[in-house]
Amino acid sequence: MTSPMERPSLAPDSTQPSAVQRLAAIDLGSNSFHLLVAHYQDDRLQVVARRGEKVQLAAGLDDEGKLEEAAMQRALDCLARFAPFITDIPPGQLRVVGTNALRDASNSQAFIDRAEALLGQRIEIIGGREEARLIYLGAAHSLAENGRRLIIDIGGGSTEFIIGEQFEPLALESLQLGCVTYTRRFFADGEISEKRMRRAELAALSELANIRRPYRELGWDDPVGSSGTIKAAASVIAAADEDAADGVVTHAGLKRMRAALIDCAHLDGVALEGLKADRARVFPAGVAILGAIFEAFNLEHLRYADGALREGVLYDMVGRNGPEDSRLKTLISLQQRHGVDPRQGANVAVSAAELLAQVRDTWELSDDQARFLDWAARLHEIGLAISHSQFHRHGAYLLAHSDLAGFSRPEQQLLAFLVRAHRRKFPHREWRALPGSQQLPCARLARLLRLAVLLNHSRAEQPPATPRLEVHGDAMRLTLSGNESDHTLLQTDLEQEVVYQKAAGFNLVLG
Amino acid sequence: MTSPMERPSLAPDSTQPSAVQRLAAIDLGSNSFHLLVAHYQDDRLQVVARRGEKVQLAAGLDDEGKLEEAAMQRALDCLARFAPFITDIPPGQLRVVGTNALRDASNSQAFIDRAEALLGQRIEIIGGREEARLIYLGAAHSLAENGRRLIIDIGGGSTEFIIGEQFEPLALESLQLGCVTYTRRFFADGEISEKRMRRAELAALSELANIRRPYRELGWDDPVGSSGTIKAAASVIAAADEDAADGVVTHAGLKRMRAALIDCAHLDGVALEGLKADRARVFPAGVAILGAIFEAFNLEHLRYADGALREGVLYDMVGRNGPEDSRLKTLISLQQRHGVDPRQGANVAVSAAELLAQVRDTWELSDDQARFLDWAARLHEIGLAISHSQFHRHGAYLLAHSDLAGFSRPEQQLLAFLVRAHRRKFPHREWRALPGSQQLPCARLARLLRLAVLLNHSRAEQPPATPRLEVHGDAMRLTLSGNESDHTLLQTDLEQEVVYQKAAGFNLVLG
Repeated sequence: MTSPMERPSLAPDSTQPSAVQRLAAIDLGSNSFHLLVAHYQDDRLQVVARRGEKVQLAAGLDDEGKLEEAAMQRALDCLARFAPFITDIPPGQLRVVGTNALRDASNSQAFIDRAEALLGQRIEIIGGREEARLIYLGAAHSLAENGRRLIIDIGGGSTEFIIGEQFEPLALESLQLGCVTYTRRFFADGEISEKRMRRAELAALSELANIRRPYRELGWDDPVGSSGTIKAAASVIAAADEDAADGVVTHAGLKRMRAALIDCAHLDGVALEGLKADRARVFPAGVAILGAIFEAFNLEHLRYADGALREGVLYDMVGRNGPEDSRLKTLISLQQRHGVDPRQGANVAVSAAELLAQVRDTWELSDDQARFLDWAARLHEIGLAISHSQFHRHGAYLLAHSDLAGFSRPEQQLLAFLVRAHRRKFPHREWRALPGSQQLPCARLARLLRLAVLLNHSRAEQPPATPRLEVHGDAMRLTLSGNESDHTLLQTDLEQEVVYQKAAGFNLVLG
Repeated sequence: MTSPMERPSLAPDSTQPSAVQRLAAIDLGSNSFHLLVAHYQDDRLQVVARRGEKVQLAAGLDDEGKLEEAAMQRALDCLARFAPFITDIPPGQLRVVGTNALRDASNSQAFIDRAEALLGQRIEIIGGREEARLIYLGAAHSLAENGRRLIIDIGGGSTEFIIGEQFEPLALESLQLGCVTYTRRFFADGEISEKRMRRAELAALSELANIRRPYRELGWDDPVGSSGTIKAAASVIAAADEDAADGVVTHAGLKRMRAALIDCAHLDGVALEGLKADRARVFPAGVAILGAIFEAFNLEHLRYADGALREGVLYDMVGRNGPEDSRLKTLISLQQRHGVDPRQGANVAVSAAELLAQVRDTWELSDDQARFLDWAARLHEIGLAISHSQFHRHGAYLLAHSDLAGFSRPEQQLLAFLVRAHRRKFPHREWRALPGSQQLPCARLARLLRLAVLLNHSRAEQPPATPRLEVHGDAMRLTLSGNESDHTLLQTDLEQEVVYQKAAGFNLVLG
């Protein structure tokens, strides 16, 4: 029995390492959308297409945090222009990720539905720290130097701060400051003044106070910035001073730029040499954030470097399809941190896999779904770390809200649902809250997991012989051989399970 | 600055150790209510009054889990008879605790309100594992022998299983099996048959399967039972066999008793020598549970011992008022388990204490409330163990749902509320969900904690000088000296806090 927790079963290209794979990532940022298409061969990514548009999604949030129709339309128009680049890319080699504006918007599901229909592809909202992790992964691949790095990515709605060495992040944070949201908050009427700039800087400093001390204690050799604001700032500084090093924001240059922006007096009047017109309106807020970062971290200079979220998504995708799925590491560390009994988890995973094998073709469950069943089996007792009472609920809470490196939010939601559903009443309300397309497979996975848990109820050292399972449509028939140890206990448990499944509208018959 | 986390400030009698203290505990069980009054002097508890009545609260739950009026009335009548015993006992020396039936009943708040009005005393619902901990504490004090003990307490709605040595529990569980609820579930029409008995036993075995293996792995020298069911069983066995040891349930005796009950054929016909009439109807279910326990744990005998929940409540109360408040140990272990930064927590606690000292008289906050402010300050960052995003919510979840030894549910709710309220918007809905009498003091404590957190926002090594705080009614005025380090940051934070407090209907003015 191979164990996907240690060895991922999905490594589609491990048998033919030299075939070219076409990979793509779309990053739905709060300020800009980006598309990146690359060829992957012999462990190397080669970019073949790159597009970026300033959609300013976050600027289209109304006072109640709803995305306005005009902003949605701008975004969909942009995606329509991206769509031709990804039509021939197979699923599993393409990811579309949304960040802060879509995390925050109260009606983001409406936008996602329309965008998914347009692209024919699932969109995943990722959490702030997952965003930070992916940014680091992208930046780390683009940096030649070694040593300890501080990577800063000023976005439209959030700014990520990562300290890491080589490919290993040591600290990850995502703070609620961005050039688009700060423009709305501090420059709403367009006026630029010393007082406005200072208010924006102080607000940013207040957010930064949460991480300043631990980050300074960790320290870094090389501060790097990887976003449009920082690229633009370096370009403006270089344009103003021909002695300035290329692609570097200096403290002195930043101060001069700040003064020049205040002289512009109004967002409509922002025009600096080296600054593109489509960044002008959000640039003062970006510079205020940058100023606060220099102040909080006592920086003298910040170097611009390519390579950000979308690059990270591509490298992460390569990892998932290879032997180093970052999600495995995450789950193993989670299991250890919460003291989950690995033997019981592994036994339930074996039973779940053997039940699944009997129905997989009929139920059309994918490799990826099989992997989530395995992971849920290994983690189903995680809620015991909080309390035995209602531990399926606590486990779901932990899986839904923890920062799980490598997992998108829908993936965390799926894992949380399976753990929530593994015992007691089938959670009908939580099930209905899943995306429509996920409901059928999720119910099937949950029903398999429930049986696997019951089979291992007596916590034997080895998983028991797996009974015969047949399905006709969604009706299940489970046939015990009668030789099971603890047969009467199992029989009692299964009779109760028939009642639970019936209450949820599912048919389970004991043979 | 003394630190209540290490040294509780409330030790009212430490100056006069030989004074007699009158203590009382009332235990609102699912089957019986019990009253215990004792004198405490020189580290010794001497029982001075003991009452018990079979109220059968759990039998009064209707099909929707509501307590029926008749059951409530039985319970209130019983409490009216207990009331005279506790009229002269000062608060802090009396606890009234409710267990499974009140945990489960959907309308338990209505009952609690009426019972509190009648007794003039707060009623606390305690969780299953807290119940188990208190039972162990009570039983451990009544047992002379050392060695590893298994303590079993079969209640009306739940049964507690504890393994421990001396006064230290090693495993605590509370399972959903009880003689009253099992009577409803398996003997609803009164019939007693082999089949009915076996169904009840199998259901109990299914619950027991969750703990059987880890408990057997821990092992025990001495199995002890501490409830009415076990006392009655030992008494019936002794009556049937004059060679039987007094107060011991043997496997053989249990089997004979089971057969005799089946011969009775109907609950109305249950009459065994040694069995009191008021236990007869719930005795077959109790014997079924007992049989399942013998089977699961492979017991040969179980000795009855006095000392249960109500004794544990008294011993715990003695501990709280002395140097070994069990809650401190719990909070320190919680802090460690979740990797909370103790320095930041201690700094916030210092600031909170200094702010509190300036308003404590006006706001009439008690020693106990001061202690909860201190604890909340030390634990306010606990949610970071789950994720930085919304960590105040995660912290509240952990504090509300973890098994916190020594804490009643309302106490956990208070701690969870303060952590929930320590940053960002004031949580109005959660505040309104607190018991009415708690809302005013809780809001005051939360507002102090919020200021203490802001004062320590920059995470300095030492807490900052505490600004002057004045209150007029609930309006606060905070006057900064202007010498604070990070003054502008603090000013920005406090201006935002004025907005947050105003939105919640509170007045905060910066001087």
